[in-house]
Formats: sequence, C-alpha cells, structure tokens
Amino acid sequence: MGLLSEGLTQILIPVAAFIGLAFALFQWFLVSKVKVSGGYGDYSGYKDKDRLINEGDTEEGVDTLEVSIKCAEIQNAISVGATSFLFTEYRYLGIFTAVFGVVIFLFLGSVKGFSTASEPCTYNTGNICKPALANALFTTIAFFLGAITSVLSGFLGMKIATYANARTTLEARKGVGKAFITAFRSGAVMGFLLSANGLLVLWVSINLFKLYYGDDWEGLYESITGYGLGGSSMALFGRVGGGIYTKAADVGADLVGKVERNIPEDDPRNPAVIADNVGDNVGDIAGMGSDLFGSYAESSCAALFVASISSFGINHDFSAMSYPLIISSMGIVVCLITTLFATDFFEIKRVSEIEPTLKRQLVISTVFMTAGIAMVTFFALPSEFTLFNFGTEMSVKNWHLFFCVAIGLWAGLVIGYTTEYYTSSAYSPVKDVADSCRTGAATNVIFGLALGYKSVIIPIFAIAVAIYVSFSLAAMYGISVSALGMLSTIATGLAIDAYGPISDNAGGIAEMAGMSHEIRERTDALDAAGNTTAAIGKGFAIGSAALVSLALFGAFVSRAGINTVDVLTPKVFIGLLVGAMLPYWFSAMTMKSVGSAALKMVEEVRRQFNTIPGLMEGRAKPDYATCVKISTDASLREMIPPGALVMLTPLIAGTLFGVETLAGVLAGSLVSGVQVAISASNTGGAWDNAKKYIEAGGNEHAKSLGPKGSDAHKAAVIGDTIGDPLKDTSGPSLNILIKLMAVESLVFAPFFAAHGGLLFKLF
Amino acid sequence: MGLLSEGLTQILIPVAAFIGLAFALFQWFLVSKVKVSGGYGDYSGYKDKDRLINEGDTEEGVDTLEVSIKCAEIQNAISVGATSFLFTEYRYLGIFTAVFGVVIFLFLGSVKGFSTASEPCTYNTGNICKPALANALFTTIAFFLGAITSVLSGFLGMKIATYANARTTLEARKGVGKAFITAFRSGAVMGFLLSANGLLVLWVSINLFKLYYGDDWEGLYESITGYGLGGSSMALFGRVGGGIYTKAADVGADLVGKVERNIPEDDPRNPAVIADNVGDNVGDIAGMGSDLFGSYAESSCAALFVASISSFGINHDFSAMSYPLIISSMGIVVCLITTLFATDFFEIKRVSEIEPTLKRQLVISTVFMTAGIAMVTFFALPSEFTLFNFGTEMSVKNWHLFFCVAIGLWAGLVIGYTTEYYTSSAYSPVKDVADSCRTGAATNVIFGLALGYKSVIIPIFAIAVAIYVSFSLAAMYGISVSALGMLSTIATGLAIDAYGPISDNAGGIAEMAGMSHEIRERTDALDAAGNTTAAIGKGFAIGSAALVSLALFGAFVSRAGINTVDVLTPKVFIGLLVGAMLPYWFSAMTMKSVGSAALKMVEEVRRQFNTIPGLMEGRAKPDYATCVKISTDASLREMIPPGALVMLTPLIAGTLFGVETLAGVLAGSLVSGVQVAISASNTGGAWDNAKKYIEAGGNEHAKSLGPKGSDAHKAAVIGDTIGDPLKDTSGPSLNILIKLMAVESLVFAPFFAAHGGLLFKLF
Repeated sequence: MGLLSEGLTQILIPVAAFIGLAFALFQWFLVSKVKVSGGYGDYSGYKDKDRLINEGDTEEGVDTLEVSIKCAEIQNAISVGATSFLFTEYRYLGIFTAVFGVVIFLFLGSVKGFSTASEPCTYNTGNICKPALANALFTTIAFFLGAITSVLSGFLGMKIATYANARTTLEARKGVGKAFITAFRSGAVMGFLLSANGLLVLWVSINLFKLYYGDDWEGLYESITGYGLGGSSMALFGRVGGGIYTKAADVGADLVGKVERNIPEDDPRNPAVIADNVGDNVGDIAGMGSDLFGSYAESSCAALFVASISSFGINHDFSAMSYPLIISSMGIVVCLITTLFATDFFEIKRVSEIEPTLKRQLVISTVFMTAGIAMVTFFALPSEFTLFNFGTEMSVKNWHLFFCVAIGLWAGLVIGYTTEYYTSSAYSPVKDVADSCRTGAATNVIFGLALGYKSVIIPIFAIAVAIYVSFSLAAMYGISVSALGMLSTIATGLAIDAYGPISDNAGGIAEMAGMSHEIRERTDALDAAGNTTAAIGKGFAIGSAALVSLALFGAFVSRAGINTVDVLTPKVFIGLLVGAMLPYWFSAMTMKSVGSAALKMVEEVRRQFNTIPGLMEGRAKPDYATCVKISTDASLREMIPPGALVMLTPLIAGTLFGVETLAGVLAGSLVSGVQVAISASNTGGAWDNAKKYIEAGGNEHAKSLGPKGSDAHKAAVIGDTIGDPLKDTSGPSLNILIKLMAVESLVFAPFFAAHGGLLFKLF
Repeated sequence: MGLLSEGLTQILIPVAAFIGLAFALFQWFLVSKVKVSGGYGDYSGYKDKDRLINEGDTEEGVDTLEVSIKCAEIQNAISVGATSFLFTEYRYLGIFTAVFGVVIFLFLGSVKGFSTASEPCTYNTGNICKPALANALFTTIAFFLGAITSVLSGFLGMKIATYANARTTLEARKGVGKAFITAFRSGAVMGFLLSANGLLVLWVSINLFKLYYGDDWEGLYESITGYGLGGSSMALFGRVGGGIYTKAADVGADLVGKVERNIPEDDPRNPAVIADNVGDNVGDIAGMGSDLFGSYAESSCAALFVASISSFGINHDFSAMSYPLIISSMGIVVCLITTLFATDFFEIKRVSEIEPTLKRQLVISTVFMTAGIAMVTFFALPSEFTLFNFGTEMSVKNWHLFFCVAIGLWAGLVIGYTTEYYTSSAYSPVKDVADSCRTGAATNVIFGLALGYKSVIIPIFAIAVAIYVSFSLAAMYGISVSALGMLSTIATGLAIDAYGPISDNAGGIAEMAGMSHEIRERTDALDAAGNTTAAIGKGFAIGSAALVSLALFGAFVSRAGINTVDVLTPKVFIGLLVGAMLPYWFSAMTMKSVGSAALKMVEEVRRQFNTIPGLMEGRAKPDYATCVKISTDASLREMIPPGALVMLTPLIAGTLFGVETLAGVLAGSLVSGVQVAISASNTGGAWDNAKKYIEAGGNEHAKSLGPKGSDAHKAAVIGDTIGDPLKDTSGPSLNILIKLMAVESLVFAPFFAAHGGLLFKLF
C-alpha cells in the first residue's frame, strides 16, 4: 500500500474539486465587476486607476454610453441565440441519450441472458461478483451521468463566454491589458468549472456505486466506463453540430460580405453576423468543452478499468486505485497557481506580450505539474505492484508510473509548441503561405495543404515516444495515465483555448457597436493570439485523444478477453484498412454539410442584400433571425449522419464481425484519424493567420502583400474560408470519432465477446 | 502436379510475351501510317476513304500543309524536350542504382558474414541451399535488371506517346473517330510493350538464375525479389520527378496564361507551353509506365517468393511455381482480343461514344480474363497443395486460387467504375462540384475535398473484400495472386490510360499549330474522356498497390521469420502510428516542391511577357528553353528528399528498431497511404473535369455556370490548379511509397532479421 490512506484520499479529491469550483466562481465574480450597459458609473474614474496603457494609447477609444448599451444588446442577442440553439440541440440529444441508454442496457443485459444471479469474478478469482444485469444497469446510469455532465460543461462554458464577450470589448477601451485579463479570466472560469465538475461527478459516482458493489471492484469500474461513453457521445454531437453551425454562418457571411460586398468582417449590415458570433460560442466553446471533458472522463475511466483488474483492484487499495483522480486533483491546484501568473503576477502592457504570456502558461503549468506528479506518485502508490497486461501480469515500480504521466504531459507541451510554430504568423511556415498568395488562391491552397501535412511529423513522433515509453513501462495502464498526464493541465489548456472565441466575439461586438478603429485593433490583436492558442488547444485535444483512444482500445481488448491483435490475420487487417478509411468518410460528410449549409446561407444573405432597401447604406436592419434559423436547422439535420456513422460502426463491426475486426477498426481509425485531424486543424489555423498577417501589415513583407482588398489578400481570404470547416468542423470532430468508437467498444465489449462475429459464425 | 507440363510452360510463357511484342509493333506500324509533315500526299483523297464523319462535321477543319509542318515542328520540340529530360534523369538514376546496388550487396552479404559456404535450407529442410553471398549477388543483379526494364518501359512509352501526339492531331481533321483510334492504338503499343517486356525479362531471369541455383528454389526466388525492388525504385523517381516536372510547368503556365493574361490553354505565346506538354509525357506516360511495371514486377515476385517456400517450391513443381507468370501470359492474350473491340470490331462515330468505348474495354477484358483465369488455374495447378502461412501450413484447393485471382480482377473493375463515377462530369458528384463554383473558389475547394474523401469508401470496401477472401482462402499467396489478377489486364489498363496524355498533347499541338476551332473541340472531347480514364488508371494503380504491398508485407514477414504482428505491443504500435504519418510527410514534400517550382515558373513566364516585345501580339517567339530548364532543374533537385524518405525509412526502421516495428510501419503506411492516394487523385480529377464541364457548356446547367472567363469558371480554374499536384504528383507517388517500402523490406529482410533492432539491443 502507498503512504496515502484511503480516508485522506477520500478527503483530498473533493477538496481539490471544491477549490477548483471556488476559484472558478471567484474569477466569474471578477469578470462580473465589468458592467455592461446602464451601470456606466464605475467607469468614470478609470483613467486614474488604469495602469495598463498601450503603446501609443490614446483615449479616443473611450466611447459613449450609447455604445455600451449597444454592446449589451448585441451580447444579449448572441446569448439568446446560443442558448436557444443549445436547448434545441439538447432536445435531440435527450432523445438520443434515452434511446442509446436502453440499447446499452439491453445489449449488456443480454450478455448473461438478463440473469440476476451473482457470478464468480473474472480477474479477482475466487471472489463472487455482482450479476451482469447490475453492470448493465449501472453502466446505463453512468452513461446518463456522463452525458449530463458533458452537456452541463458545454452549457456553462457557453454561458460564461457570452457573458464575457461584451465585457472584453468594453475593457478594450481601457487598453489591451485589461481586455486580455477579462477574456482570460472568463476562459479560466470555464477551465476550472469543467475540470472540477468532471472530477467531482466521477468521485461521487464511484462512491455511490460502491454502496451497491461493495468489494466487487471489477463490476464497479466496468460500470463507470459508461461515464466516459456518455461524456463523449454528447461531445460528438456538440462538436459536429456546433461545428457545422459556426462554419455555415462564418463561411456564408464571409462569402457574401467580404468577397462580394466588400464590407468588413462582423459588419452589422451582414445578416449572418449574429449567427456567426453565436456559432463561435456553440462550436468553439461548448463543443470544445464537451470534447475535452470527454477526453478527461475517458482517460480516467480507461485507467480505472485497467487498475481494477490489476493488483490495485484485486488488493482493494483505494488510494492506488484513485491515482488517476488524484492526478487530476493535483492538476487543479497546479493550474490555479499557473493562472495567477497570467492574471496577477505579471501584467500585459503591449500587444506583443499577449502570445508569450499565453505560451508561458503552458510551460509554467507543465513544470509545476511535473513536480506535482512526482509527489502524487510517491504518496499514492505502493513502491511496487503488478499490472494487467493482456492476459499476463507485469511488475511495475511507482517511479515507472511517474515517467508515464510525465511523458504524456511533456509530449503535450511539444505538440502545443509545434502547433504554435506551424500556425503562428511569427514563424516562417505561415509567412511562406502568406507569400504564396502573391500568385493567387491556388498556390495558397497548395502551400497550406502542404503545411498541414508537414505539421503532422513532430506531434506524431512525440506521441509515438510517449506511447513507447509508457507502454513499455506500464502496459495499457501506462498509456491511460500518460493521457491523463497530458490532460492534467486541462484547466489551463481550456482557459487559453476559450480565450480565443471570447476575443473573437469581442471584436465582433466592437465592430457591430460601431466602436472606434483602435478598439477593433486591440480586439484583433487578442484574436490573432487566440487563433494560435485555439490551434494549440486543438493540438492538445488531438494528442490526448490519440493516447486516450489507445488506452480505451487496450481496455476494450482486455475486457473482450483477446490477448493479441495480429495484423497477419484477415479479420484484423480488413478492420485496420476500413478503420483507416472512416476519418475520410466522416470528414466528407461534415465538410459537405458545411458546404451545403453555407450555400444556403449565401443565398439568404444575398437575398437580404438584394431585397431589403437601405441595408447596404446602414439605414435598414437585416433579418438576423432567418440566418440563425438556417444555421440551426442545417446543423441539427446534418449532425445525424456523421453521428450515426461513429455510433453505429462499433456496434455493427462488433456484432457482425467480432472483436478482432473491431480491434482492427479501432487501431486503423486511430492511426489514420490523428493525422487527418492534426493536418486539417493546422492547415486551417495557418490560412487564418496568413490572412490576418496580411491584414495587419506588421512588417515590410506583410505590407508588400496587403492591404485589405489586394489580390494577395483576396487569395488569402479564399484560403481562410476553405480552412474554416477543416479546422473547426471536420478536424476537431475526428478526435471524438477515434475516442468515442473506442469507449463504445469498451462498454459493449462483454456483449461482443459473448455474441459478436455473427457473420463469421454463419459462414 | 497440374496438367500442364514443365516443358509446355517453358514454351507458353515466352510465346505469349512475343505475341504481345508483335502486337505492339503492329499497332505502332498502323499509327506510323499517319504521316506527319512532308508526306502530305496520303491525305489528298481521304474524303472518299473516310467513313467516320462526325455529327455536324464540316470540312473546314482541313488545314493546310503549313499546319502539318508546324505540327511536326512542335512534336519534335516536345520529343526532344522529353528525351533530354529523361536522359538527364537517367544519369541521376544511374548513380543511385549503382550505389544502391552496392548497398544491397553489402547488407545481404553481411548476413552470414560474406561466407561462401553453402547452408542448409530454411524451409526445404534437409536440403542444402546456396550461400547467402550468392543470394546477395543475384539479388543485386535482379535489382539492376528490374531497374533497366523499368527505365526502358517508361522510355518506350514516352517515345510512342510523343510519336503519336501530332498524328492524333492530324487525324482529328478527319473526325473524332480517326483521332480516337490513333490515340488508342498508341496507348496499346505502350500497354503491350510493357506487359510483354516485363514478363519476358522475368522469365529469362528466372531461367538464367536457375542455371546457377539448380534445385535451390528458395535462394532463386529470394534473389528474384530484387527485380521488383529495381523496378519500383525507378518508378519512384520517375513518378516523383516526372510529377514535379509536369505540374510545375502546368501550374506555372496556367497561373500566368489563363488567369493573368487570359489566353487559352496551350497557347503558343505562353513560354511554359512546351514544358507543359513535355511534362505530360515524362510524368503521366513514363512515370505511369514505370509505376505499373513496378506493381506487376512486385506482385509477381511476392507470389513467386511465397510459392517457393510452399509445396510448389519444395516439390519443385515448375508449372505451379510459374502460375503468376502464366496468368500474366493469359492476360496478354485477353487484352489483345479486348483491344480489337475498340479498334476493329466497333467504330466510334460521335463524341458521346468515346467514354463508353473506353469503359467497355474494362468490362470486356475483365469478363474474358475471368474465363482465362479459370483455364489457367485448372491446367497449371495441382488440385490440392499446401501453402506457407506464417509458420504454419494451410491446405488449399486449386479453385480457391481461382477465386483469389478473380476477386482481385473484379475488385479492380469496381474501383475503376467508382473512380469514373466520382470524376466524370456525367454524374452528379462532379456536377455538384461545378455548381459550387457559383459561390467562388472556396466552396469549390471544400466540395472537391469532400468528394475526394467520399470517393475512398467503395474502393476501400472492394479492396477489403478482396483481401478478406483471398487471405482466408490462400493466405499471403492468395493476396499476391489477387494483386496479379487486378494487374492481369494491365495492357488494356495502360492503353486507356496512356490514351489520356496523348490526347491532351494532341489538343496542345492543335492549339499551338493554330488549327481550327473544330479540331480543338474534337481533341478536347478526347481529352475529357482521357481525364476520366487517367483517374481510372490511377484507381487501378492504387488498388493494385494496396494488394501488392500487402502481399510484399506478408512475404517480408515470412522471410524475416516472425509469425505475428501484434498491435498490442509497443514496438508494433508506434510503427503503425509513424507509418500512417509517412504519406503525409511525403505529400508535404512533393506538394511544396510543385508549389515552389511553379512559383519560379510563374516568375519566368511573367518576366518573358513583360520583357519580350510583341510576345502577347504573337509577333515574337517566347523562350521555351528556359521554362524547360526550370522544370528540369526543379524536378531533379526536388525528387531527392522524398525519394530519400521512402528509400531510407525501411533501412532505418529495420536496422534501428527491428522487424516488428518495420512491420508496423509498413502496415500503417499501407492503410493510411491508400486513402490519401485515392482521395488526392479523385479530388484532382473531379476539379479538372468540373472545369471542363463548365467550359464545354454541354447542357443548361453547365451553360448557366459558364462561359469561359465567368466568375464560376475562374473559381473552377483555381480548383483545377490545386488539383494538379494532388492528382499527378503526390497522389500517384504514394502508390510507390507503399509498394517500395514493402519490397525493400522484403529484400533486406534477412539482414534485419540477423542484425536489426540495434536501438532496442543497446537499451
């Protein structure tokens, strides 16, 4: 047994979760001190209080009360649009969850023919475990809990983001530093709410399930896997639906507004502008929140499941069993300290400090967390123990696990920095792409695609090293805690990630409220840094998804009772080949969906410009609601086929072809999907920033390509538009594809093992 | 033993090869009857002889002697450019081949420490086999033979293509039917020359090697694998070098000519126009020829190697051993009959008949070949025998092998037809892409990428079914003969494939020679069908590459002496992950190369337009040679890094990480590369034909998007330009990546098994 007693573990975990929640609420409170509309009084004296003055900052940016009221109106419109979309989406998700919950119960219940008799345990030989029917029931409950937590995570994230966007705009009047802190704090609210909430619900569920399961930890942690499935299936629909929503609006708005009518981005005359801003919140915020929550829930579940059939579970060592949860608890504390470096210990005084500050967050959290992991590992784990390794057992020392977690954490940092290199306009790759706009859109696209392909190399090597080390040291348990290591700083990751769309919205609001050019420049600077951090966030999400789905894959294989997945058998190989195809099928669906929805949006926006008199002159208001409706309808309708593809593939493959083929499918989709996801996300990020680089004209080279409206800039806009669905719809949804298929297979493994492979049995 | 005696086998194979050669020469003779320049006399009376009159055909298309002389000049310029490029390329290839030959000899010689002592055989236990040093030497010789045959195949293809292009143009004056037959016959020359030549050299090599090896068939067929490696490594450089050459010229010519200067494609005023036409011949013809020859050589070698360690080899049943060669012999005969259906049995009278005629070729050859396979299988194979299956033996009946070959053949047809569906403007996918041009280049690119991703689905299922059936029936031998089945109609496949670039060149010559609009329309119609058949050809090349590399993978694993490739081991899994990344790395290199070379070309073309007075007015001649030089230099310089990536990866992975990791790399690159290749090639084909669809304006829908120069057309041109490197450089080169890494691993397997995995041995 380790040094940490069970009692202390049971105290530390919820305490960490509550600290996280309290910190989130405190940040929210700080953000709420910025008053939107009406209560303008606070502001009168800010000139004296304000220590953050920009280079060349003048006070002409201070706008009138009228502007503030306008901001409040716009914020309200965005918030109402986002809330109404999410509630409509949740109705669909509710039906799906109910139906799929029944499917889980029936499939798992049928494993032992709905028998209520207790059974001898599989791994903890000699003991008696609860009936399979109980596992079916509790898995279903865990599924519901995961689904609710995921939806809640996304919803809360959206709420704080729409709460913060206008506040960031208003703060931008005081300088870029104030605006940065408001946006960043709001991101932190989301980060801490999510991580603390996810940890808390998991801890409560385990303890409640324990009341029934008692000493049957096999059944307990098998059932808990439903939590991961619930979280991830909601994330799928959130990402896909939100992704289609946001990009249909964005592409549609840009194609008519920027390209045809030559009006700026976020111009209030553009009928799709509200839909575009709503989209940022439902796609990038709510979708991303659900996604990373899903990763977190899944890697915890995978680790817990493997631990439960290893010596931790068999010896009933609760502290060691809870190692994954303790890491996450430590993560919350580390991220809390890290956040202070951005908000309190240092101040941002100029635009050029934004990106370094955000990047520093990653390094600080990684360094502190490395020490944190060492502590946790030393206290929570026995110095030596055995882990289950596909039918055999391997002996492992506690410091082995330290290396597993730490290498995941550092691999995440490498991925983050690589992503930054390939997507930030500070480095040559994006500059080259911008330069290729000289010869038009075609070369821009060719260079952008090549950049995306190239950006895959280092992350893949980083993931490969992390996998090799942790796999060798601690088998599949090593992989799952490595994934947890990468996700341990999730609160910080989410904070810098959510910061992006908030700044994007803030810029939109400034434009729509008719605020001065200078304000818009400040929010643009925040936004440009946000594009890079969004790409970094996606890099993390993809990297962790690769590790998580490998861990889930390992857990699935263990649970299905197979000890090898041999490529040299036809069953496995065809699974591998077809699995590698799935990311393409899925991307085809989502990209086409965005394209079709954008075409509809374009027609509507054109119609409004053509039929509403005085719209172009700003004398008449556009009909925002119709555009919102187009995005809503399209995303809800179009999210079903890709969702069905992901949810049905494991069920069909497992039932008809059996566990070996399904194992092949999972491995194939994992190794192929991660490449497609990384390249799509970085290509899109690079195009976006190449366009911003030309627009900003920050140096001689950039000036030679600009200004806005030049041929090179037009070519860059085309690239940016193509990148939108790649980086915000199909790319990030692929994380979920690979994780979700794996966790679904894990949950249904007993069914497939018992009844799967029908087709081969028939012939 | 089967019914076919060894003596008869030894007669039938060379006879089939000679029939193929004779038929090719006869076709060449028929093409040569069309006189270019000078001997215009033949033509005077053609009005009476000509039975092929087009709908609405008028004789205004008949041009003067002057035009004919101009055609001859242009043809000569293209031929000289292509020959000079290929000879420069061959100098590089010569150095590479010499160096790599030494590497092969040293690596394989070192396996047993350069000992000249005979050894007991590995599989044919109890017998004595030749020393490893002899195998090293003969493998090196086979490598040289393969390399020479491959280079010869590409060169001959180029020669006939440049011989035929102007003749096709001239025949187009008489009607589309005549032009079609000329282009098609020329394609057939290439198809039959290649397949007959490949078969003959292989047969001669086996018989010559046998003089030394005698009864040691293990060593004999191990050495023969060098033939596949030689063929494929030349193909790599041919495809990559040729691909960069052709697309740098094409993209560069289009960007300035079509987009900036608004002059037609292939306009003689464009300085890059000769380089563009040379490119078609060195890339699409010579590159494709080497590529398919490589596939053919590799699948034969893989099948022969597996057979040699199965009962065929151990019992010294020469006819059964030669089953792969007999299938190819039968293929030549079947293709000969098939060709007559296009050239003699039916006549093409109108444009709309071109595509159906080409498609019919595929069906006819497939149906006849199915009967042919049944015959060959019945006569050449014993009714029951055993095959080597990763350490175990499996008992197989001869009709099992019939199914293996036949399913490969039919899977090829399915892939061909799917490709046609996704790339021909007759069906909705391309029409949808064309329609998306309405809203600009961005939606065109989004729809095109989605189309490419979607087009992967059916081919992958077809390949998966072929793999499952043949793998289950006859293990790796089944896979390799399945690949041979797909390639058995290679002569027909190459004929319809080479037809495309010939027609493309013919159109270019018509434009440059200033021939009438009608002639150009006819060659355009030939070319449009050629785009689709080129895509079909690429589909075949990719599908067969997938099967071939799986067969080679199986042979490698067998030769390396490992019996499982378990995904649940870290060594294999990281191999799988990194392997799946390689196609992206490779594509990044090749696309960036095309992009950079195209930028240089653009600058040169712009420079000429700006500095040569009277060029735009047609009063001055452009400097074609400088553009040719830019393409040549760029392609030779840029083909080295991707070439090195492919050639070095197996050596590094095998030497440092060992055979398991290398097996993972091969499997990963196979399952990932095939998706990237198919989607890239179909996306590019679809964009090209969407553009042609708008230009042709063949129906109301197309007319509403056109005419040339409309916004929608401009968007379509951008898509076409982006598609160029995808479909002609990176996509088709990926076939070679996956095959070449596999065959190289196979050849070096004894070395890796003996000395590989240094890194793991050290730690």
